[in-house]
Amino acid sequence: MNRLFYPRGIAVIGASDNFARGSSMFLYSLIGLKYPGGLYPVNIVADGTIMGLPAYKRVTDIAGPVDYAIIGVPAPITREVLADCIQKGVPYAHFFTAGFKELQTEEGERLERELVDMARGKIRLIGPNCMGVYCSEARVGFDANHPTEPGEVAFISQSGGHAINFIRCAAERGLTLSKAVSYGNASDLSSSDFLEYFAEDPKSAVVGIYIEGAKEGRSFFETLKKAARNKPVIIWKGGRTAAGTHAASGHTGALAGSFDIWKGMSKQTGAVLVNDSDEMIDLMLGLKYLPLPKGLNTALVCTGGGNSVVASDQCNELGLKLPPLADDIQRELLTILREAGTIRKNPVDASAHGIIPHNVVRIVEIIERAPNIDCVLFTYQLYFLVRNLKRIGISLDDALDHLIAALGNAKNNVSKPLAFALARDSDELEVEEVRLTLKERLLKVGVPAFDSVRAASLALIRMNQLREYRERNSP
Amino acid sequence: MNRLFYPRGIAVIGASDNFARGSSMFLYSLIGLKYPGGLYPVNIVADGTIMGLPAYKRVTDIAGPVDYAIIGVPAPITREVLADCIQKGVPYAHFFTAGFKELQTEEGERLERELVDMARGKIRLIGPNCMGVYCSEARVGFDANHPTEPGEVAFISQSGGHAINFIRCAAERGLTLSKAVSYGNASDLSSSDFLEYFAEDPKSAVVGIYIEGAKEGRSFFETLKKAARNKPVIIWKGGRTAAGTHAASGHTGALAGSFDIWKGMSKQTGAVLVNDSDEMIDLMLGLKYLPLPKGLNTALVCTGGGNSVVASDQCNELGLKLPPLADDIQRELLTILREAGTIRKNPVDASAHGIIPHNVVRIVEIIERAPNIDCVLFTYQLYFLVRNLKRIGISLDDALDHLIAALGNAKNNVSKPLAFALARDSDELEVEEVRLTLKERLLKVGVPAFDSVRAASLALIRMNQLREYRERNSP
Repeated sequence: MNRLFYPRGIAVIGASDNFARGSSMFLYSLIGLKYPGGLYPVNIVADGTIMGLPAYKRVTDIAGPVDYAIIGVPAPITREVLADCIQKGVPYAHFFTAGFKELQTEEGERLERELVDMARGKIRLIGPNCMGVYCSEARVGFDANHPTEPGEVAFISQSGGHAINFIRCAAERGLTLSKAVSYGNASDLSSSDFLEYFAEDPKSAVVGIYIEGAKEGRSFFETLKKAARNKPVIIWKGGRTAAGTHAASGHTGALAGSFDIWKGMSKQTGAVLVNDSDEMIDLMLGLKYLPLPKGLNTALVCTGGGNSVVASDQCNELGLKLPPLADDIQRELLTILREAGTIRKNPVDASAHGIIPHNVVRIVEIIERAPNIDCVLFTYQLYFLVRNLKRIGISLDDALDHLIAALGNAKNNVSKPLAFALARDSDELEVEEVRLTLKERLLKVGVPAFDSVRAASLALIRMNQLREYRERNSP
Repeated sequence: MNRLFYPRGIAVIGASDNFARGSSMFLYSLIGLKYPGGLYPVNIVADGTIMGLPAYKRVTDIAGPVDYAIIGVPAPITREVLADCIQKGVPYAHFFTAGFKELQTEEGERLERELVDMARGKIRLIGPNCMGVYCSEARVGFDANHPTEPGEVAFISQSGGHAINFIRCAAERGLTLSKAVSYGNASDLSSSDFLEYFAEDPKSAVVGIYIEGAKEGRSFFETLKKAARNKPVIIWKGGRTAAGTHAASGHTGALAGSFDIWKGMSKQTGAVLVNDSDEMIDLMLGLKYLPLPKGLNTALVCTGGGNSVVASDQCNELGLKLPPLADDIQRELLTILREAGTIRKNPVDASAHGIIPHNVVRIVEIIERAPNIDCVLFTYQLYFLVRNLKRIGISLDDALDHLIAALGNAKNNVSKPLAFALARDSDELEVEEVRLTLKERLLKVGVPAFDSVRAASLALIRMNQLREYRERNSP
């Protein structure tokens, strides 16, 4: 599929100067992304230029090579356009157009079947009812705001909206992509085909999938099994419930199937299931920045007794274990923490001491040495820092500088995963501003910050799941 | 307990000019809150004034009445101080001091037992190891930043940190309190005592409780049953898991007990269980601003196919049902929504149409009339609005004005609960700023915005639970 992701020329069929209609936004996006290949607007009523580019009435009028056709014409005339693409020898046609199988009408099903029949053996189809391909390196994509900085994440999505949002949200959290594809109704090319390609793609280190239903279960299973042996594969399954399944059939015509089957498949293939886009990004950040945990025994550090109780519940409910720290470790913690008003057993309630950056590092370094501990989960109360420092006249900037340096150091000195939960704990914009800036700066020193204890716990649990699968299946 | 929540005089024992130590922060807070009664710093080493107020060596030196003594002296000298309070005739003594039962040492247990024995029949104790009482109307509290605007929420908390954070976070979301209490180890006055008082308090319309363990299970059960007949009682239980239970015993010496018992208790008493502070605030906002749903059948409106699938899963997994909308309702939706690229069945995928304020109202008004629907859950994609309006040159301010007016109107024209999920969908500060402002402005027109589909769903489910309990138990 290199021709698809690195096309020499792209025809955007149905584009016009009206930004809001049909495939015009694809043209707008490719111009915005500075796609360096041949870019050809095609519209049967075109005369002169479209968005400043020479326009063509038919794809067969184009002289240069076209490897990728983006088609946004109304459903009833898609056949004519496809015929032209075949005649031109275009290898890949992507239908943005909706109004096919997902309508759940006979007419919709027939139209889709006709396209597939026409294409067979002559051209490969992406869609219909989808956004097509994104390749950061090749500057191909479907949103003018796509990041063009290449990354190592590949994303396969049955939903166009999820593809756009995932690419954006991942970038906001410091993760850029190698490639992505939104494949919609999967009339021809399906999740299996893209997964197979991404599994072998040297530019992609991890593959994320948003999927509502796999077209050919058995073949998807085999592809998944093979792919997950090569690199981590993370599946976000849409349509886990009856209501979600109904929504999926109205969305992409997918048969979502029973979620239990997907759980079984995950177990057998080593692919990891997540529940939403945030959880997928969390896990990808964990895999990129932290070592895999050797187990689920976790030392939890909190500030405040009530917070310790609630965070312990959250960790434990999800599956992390909090074994008591050995006596000597507990004693060593007393060199930093007073006896009254703190807890040293696990969770460690560092009380207000835990807010001071210097203490943060020392606590992490002490508990990390505990032989019965596989991961360290550190939670932080930002509101307290922002408001209380102000009150006692210490500079917040200095405190943040120290915290970042301290955590960066701690991270380098420990061999176990250190997950940092920096929860949203205020609706005040000023506090949220500090939090978002801190997250960004922490990532620059290699410390991913998770938005909640729950998010951090899930990332650790899934990283452990990947490690277990690997160990079971390595010779 | 009116003397406790509306005290004529307060002695702050152990206060000094050193803001960071012992009970000084209570004195600082009471000054900041402009507590209008007699305020008396007491410290055995005092000479002259403390924080500008005349200081006393012993509480017995004070001439005026003292209804509430806040005690922050070291554990070993708490007995002497308590003896003075008894001599002075103080009715309520609150020990901020930690280092008692929660240490899980013989010495800690003994010290606490001694205080209780001394106090019996002479003075009532709050704590030890807690923050004491907050009464907005009386300007009594333990944080200088407490809101002083009276509200209708009462909060009982075994954790001081949770009390401070709950009061703050509720206020940030537009909910102010009548009263709150942090009661820590509950050596004497316990959750039952405060619940009994708040259940009868005409200034409190709803009671929230953060609790780790109830001292006398049977009496708590009876009090809860009676209270929940008077007004909604919402319980946030800390120590639901083995790890949380261990943390709780190190925090307040509480025996957290099995969570199954609490679930049974909730069923029998009509008190509603929640899992965290946000869920409690969500439910309180729902109760304040929305009618109770008549059932769980929900019409879900989303923008985007993938979002529809994922939101349907989230609703359904939690317990909401999404029955198909009747054919005539679906047809009426087609007057607003195109056929291709939208879903009308339920969920309703309004696609980009759902972003336009005018459409929002019309969709809500159409589906609200469906006879098989009890609630409407509307989800909104803010990032899309903020970024796309900018791109096509429409003023964001205008769009937000319209949306707020539209939802305010819709809310007044419908008799079913309309829950608006305004999820965080970006780490960009600019988008989050719009979201926080929008939440605030929506509340002013009576529309509570929830931070996620999950949050909105849980609020609706719990409101329905309250309605069911009421109907079952009304004559």
